[in-house]
Amino acid sequence: MSLADRAAALDAADPLAAFRDRFLPAPSVVSYLDGNSLGRPLEATARLIDDFVRDQWGGRLIQGWTDGWLEWPLVLGDRLGAVALGAAPGQTVVADSTTVLLYKLARAAVDARPGRRTVVLDTDNFPTDRYVLEGIAAERGLLLHWVETDQATGIRPDQVAEAVDEDTALVLFSHVAYRSGWLADVPEINRIAHEAGALTLWDLCHSAGSVPVQLDEWGVDLAVGCSYKYLNGGPGAPAFGYLRHSLQDSLKQPIQGWMGHRASFEMGHGYEAAPGIRALLSGTPPILAMVPMHANLDLLAEAGIDAVRAKSLQLTDYVLELADEWLAPLGVEVVSPRDPARRGGHITLRRAGFEQLLAPLWESGVIPDYRRPDGLRIGPAPLSTSFTEVHDGLAILRDLAEKHR
Amino acid sequence: MSLADRAAALDAADPLAAFRDRFLPAPSVVSYLDGNSLGRPLEATARLIDDFVRDQWGGRLIQGWTDGWLEWPLVLGDRLGAVALGAAPGQTVVADSTTVLLYKLARAAVDARPGRRTVVLDTDNFPTDRYVLEGIAAERGLLLHWVETDQATGIRPDQVAEAVDEDTALVLFSHVAYRSGWLADVPEINRIAHEAGALTLWDLCHSAGSVPVQLDEWGVDLAVGCSYKYLNGGPGAPAFGYLRHSLQDSLKQPIQGWMGHRASFEMGHGYEAAPGIRALLSGTPPILAMVPMHANLDLLAEAGIDAVRAKSLQLTDYVLELADEWLAPLGVEVVSPRDPARRGGHITLRRAGFEQLLAPLWESGVIPDYRRPDGLRIGPAPLSTSFTEVHDGLAILRDLAEKHR
Repeated sequence: MSLADRAAALDAADPLAAFRDRFLPAPSVVSYLDGNSLGRPLEATARLIDDFVRDQWGGRLIQGWTDGWLEWPLVLGDRLGAVALGAAPGQTVVADSTTVLLYKLARAAVDARPGRRTVVLDTDNFPTDRYVLEGIAAERGLLLHWVETDQATGIRPDQVAEAVDEDTALVLFSHVAYRSGWLADVPEINRIAHEAGALTLWDLCHSAGSVPVQLDEWGVDLAVGCSYKYLNGGPGAPAFGYLRHSLQDSLKQPIQGWMGHRASFEMGHGYEAAPGIRALLSGTPPILAMVPMHANLDLLAEAGIDAVRAKSLQLTDYVLELADEWLAPLGVEVVSPRDPARRGGHITLRRAGFEQLLAPLWESGVIPDYRRPDGLRIGPAPLSTSFTEVHDGLAILRDLAEKHR
Repeated sequence: MSLADRAAALDAADPLAAFRDRFLPAPSVVSYLDGNSLGRPLEATARLIDDFVRDQWGGRLIQGWTDGWLEWPLVLGDRLGAVALGAAPGQTVVADSTTVLLYKLARAAVDARPGRRTVVLDTDNFPTDRYVLEGIAAERGLLLHWVETDQATGIRPDQVAEAVDEDTALVLFSHVAYRSGWLADVPEINRIAHEAGALTLWDLCHSAGSVPVQLDEWGVDLAVGCSYKYLNGGPGAPAFGYLRHSLQDSLKQPIQGWMGHRASFEMGHGYEAAPGIRALLSGTPPILAMVPMHANLDLLAEAGIDAVRAKSLQLTDYVLELADEWLAPLGVEVVSPRDPARRGGHITLRRAGFEQLLAPLWESGVIPDYRRPDGLRIGPAPLSTSFTEVHDGLAILRDLAEKHR
């Protein structure tokens, strides 16, 4: 069977194939392989936003706040927790940006471990994670213990065991490594960190909506993630934050705003944190920007995160197949894990000079993700990407890689 | 001339009257008097958002970032600065929430005055301003010097002169007091604070888009404000922050994210702040939530902030006229200043038991703003509110106040 026929057969057998038609068309795009950077909008999202602007914002005006908007950060957080994160209600909020939530949660964590002076993190984490912690370390007089990871290994439990000790306040890693797509062993790393008395903060930006997560079961203390990748929330959509029930009384985030107050509308003197997860909020919730999440969580609940993961692995298996057959002979290296148990939702390919292919790829309607200096990330979002789309995109990549050899 | 005829005459003579038709209809609303809490959406906003979702997000996908989204926080900041804030380019960004920007700017300010240990602020400022500073004071070991203001006076320069000294790092006030609508004398308070060597941070939430502001000319150091009131950005729309050019090298905000980095997409090791105002950014910009601002700034530029202010004063003059004629005999007190030079964009009325009127007012389609314990705020947005609308709303309020005497 040809690789094109394989794609057609996989599409024909795909139980999620019909979901692809729910997304808005992108007429100039032949192959969208960047669901790991920005998810596509649903037709339902466009309708929902238009209805929201005209009927809710425009029609109800401030009455919308008491109609329900005020609860959206918690309601959507709970729903997201149930559909994608394995989090029981009352532990997840939608708010701010990933960076701001990272700051709030990391500050809350290190401030709750006043005797401990180090934070363990890895050199290959997403920049904002590293930068936020650098800032916090400087202001709180902490030391950063950098675990050296590279794209060929991901973060390993043995590295964490070596790094943590009784001086560790917090460990911070990504569940799916943004560059390589390596999947960390979250429960085992949590076990190691907790044995040393440290708290754990996980960045779920590249997992949420793609790789099932079991925050409660895995013993995660704190987590953040974004909603604009596999959750299709739109560019710069609000982030989510998770704070385990048992820590909500003892961890206090530093940005004390009116929406985290016990009684926001009393507007009284003196900040008193709300009980529970609401205390993680600071300012007025970004309601308009949360509208898409309603449609996206409906979709994800209907499809089921396990089915999404199953298709994701089939898609990335197929990417590996095409890469081995077409791209390896052209000097392209697969950086991501071949073991499905250690593989996130995207495959990173590496070849010197990939940067030059970006413009011709875009011109041909093929949109992968590029990470300096030499990585192309292929991130097919399971709900919006067909196997044939992957085939066609990588065929064009192959032709261009041959031409620019 | 009857009060209704006066409204009709004022509407007939209103040069901004036609702008009202640009807003989306709210069929169940007779009189919307809460532009100071949530501005109404434009018809153009609904179209722009739909086009954005379908053509930009849906059609261009990640290409949108290089098409221009990455620059929106600065481009919209500059435009807002020019249209409404009297701020030259390169000093204003759109980002985060007001609360988060307050935190970032206030931290930057007090950290830049390490020898000074007090922050001067007033007891009647909006809760989030007070709460944010309480948190910062606790974490940085600062003292808060509270100036006692009440709704009858607003914050006066002589109070500030008495409060600041060589130990003051920062003063924080609102330009328009959220409860009473009093307008602070910004240039004079800045002069006093600067004489003592303190920095000034102004909250413009209740001024932006309603009362002209001259940040550069008035010598403001830092400012924040929201875009969902008179700027019609939508519920929870991103905030704006201003940091004077001359302070951008020395003031450093604490939430070091990838979007404030000198070279976000190098994703290298070690945070290096971007030059200029970009360093005020932290996370991925909330693009979808910024779409309405494009339409709103077009509208405001077309109308002109001075014409908006002129109509705003006419509207609040007319509110005062109705209040004196109809409401004073019913025991309703006007809290806001009668002097137009000291009056913001809203009028606060006070009577014990106003809370009971809220439900019947809403049922009658009249939507003012309520502030505990006994204040109704009448905030007619100049671009979307007619004099007749004010007349009709306050007539219903009068009838209800009579009934619930």
